Amino acid sequence: MASEVDVQGDTHDAIMGATYHALCKHGYAHLTMQDIADEFDKSRSLLHYHYDTKEELLLAFVDNIVGWIGDRLAESETEEPLERLEEFIDRFVIEPGEEDRETFALALLELRVQAVHNEEFREKLSVHYEKNVETVADIVADGIDEGVFREVDPEATGEAIYTALVGARMYQVTLGAEHASRRMRDQLAAFVVDDLITDGREPAAYARDDPEN
Amino acid sequence: MASEVDVQGDTHDAIMGATYHALCKHGYAHLTMQDIADEFDKSRSLLHYHYDTKEELLLAFVDNIVGWIGDRLAESETEEPLERLEEFIDRFVIEPGEEDRETFALALLELRVQAVHNEEFREKLSVHYEKNVETVADIVADGIDEGVFREVDPEATGEAIYTALVGARMYQVTLGAEHASRRMRDQLAAFVVDDLITDGREPAAYARDDPEN
Repeated sequence: MASEVDVQGDTHDAIMGATYHALCKHGYAHLTMQDIADEFDKSRSLLHYHYDTKEELLLAFVDNIVGWIGDRLAESETEEPLERLEEFIDRFVIEPGEEDRETFALALLELRVQAVHNEEFREKLSVHYEKNVETVADIVADGIDEGVFREVDPEATGEAIYTALVGARMYQVTLGAEHASRRMRDQLAAFVVDDLITDGREPAAYARDDPEN
Repeated sequence: MASEVDVQGDTHDAIMGATYHALCKHGYAHLTMQDIADEFDKSRSLLHYHYDTKEELLLAFVDNIVGWIGDRLAESETEEPLERLEEFIDRFVIEPGEEDRETFALALLELRVQAVHNEEFREKLSVHYEKNVETVADIVADGIDEGVFREVDPEATGEAIYTALVGARMYQVTLGAEHASRRMRDQLAAFVVDDLITDGREPAAYARDDPEN
C-alpha cells in the first residue's frame, strides 16, 4: 500500500491527471478504478501497484487538489487588488457547455458530503477550504493596505465571497439552475466589490459598518 | 404502491414527521426504513403499506418539505420588509449544539446531490429552490415598492441571498466550519441588507449600479 508521498514525480502526476479526467467524465458517485485506468496511459497494474482501492486513490487526489486548485485560484498576472478580486470571482463562473467543469464541481461537492463520514477527507478538504478563504482574504487585505478597499474584516469578507460562490455553483450543478454562478458573480460585483472600492466615494458612504454586526 | 397523494391526513403527517425525525437523527446516507419506523408511533406495517421503498418515501418527503420549509421561511408576524428580510436570513443560522438542524441540513444537501441522478428528486427540489428564492424576491420587491429598499432586481438579489446562505451552511455541516452560517448572516447584513436600505442615505451612495453588471 503506497501513500501519495511514495508515488514519485511523473507517475504521480499521471495518476492525478487520470483521476481528474475520470471525475470530469463520470462524476464521483459511480466512479470505478477502471474509469481511472481508462484515462491512464501507463499500465493498469501500475495504478493498482500504487493504490489498492478507489478510496485510497481519491484521498491522494483530494490531497493533491488542495495545492492544485488553491494555486490556480491564487495565481494572477497582476498585483492590483481589485483586478485580482475580480479574477478570483470570475474563476467560479461555469458557462453553459462547460460540462467537464460542471461534472468536476459536482464531484467536489460529493467529496464534501462524503467528508462528513470520513475524517481524512474532512481534514484535507478543510485545508482546501481554509486556503481558498485565505486567498480572497489576502487580496482584500492587500486592497485595504493600498487604500483601494475600505476597512473591512478581510477574513470574514473573504469567507463570505468564497462560500457564496460555492453555494450558487451548487445549485447550478445539482439542480441545473442555469447561469446561477454567473448571476452570483454579478451580484458580488454590485454588492461587495463595488462597496469595497474607496475611490470617488463620499465619506458618508463608508460609514455603513453597524457596530452590532 | 401508494403515492403521497393517496396517503390521507393524519397518517401522512405522522409518516412525514417520522421521516423528518429519522433524518435529523441518522442523516440521509445510511437511513433505513427501520429508522423511520422507529420514529413512527403507528405500526411498521402501516408504513410499508403506504411506501414500498425508502426511495418512494423520500420522494414523498421531498414533495412535502417543498411546502413545509417554504411556508416556514415565508411566514412572518410582521409586514415590514426590512424585518421580514432579517427574519428570513436569521432562519438559516445554525448555532453550535443544534445538532438536529445540522443533520437535517446535511440530509437536504445529500438529497440535492442525489437529485443529479434522479429526475423526480430534481424536479421537486427545483420547485423548493424557486419557491425559496421567490420568498426573498417578494420581500425585496415589497421593500422597493414601499420605498425602504433602493431599486434592485428583486429576483437576482433574492437568489444571491438564498444561495449564499446555503453555501455557508454547507461548509458548516460538511466540514464543521463552526459559525459559518452566522458569519454569512453578518456579512449579508453589512453588504446587502444595509446597502438596500434607503433611509438616511445620501443620494451619492445609491448611484452604485454599474451599468456593465
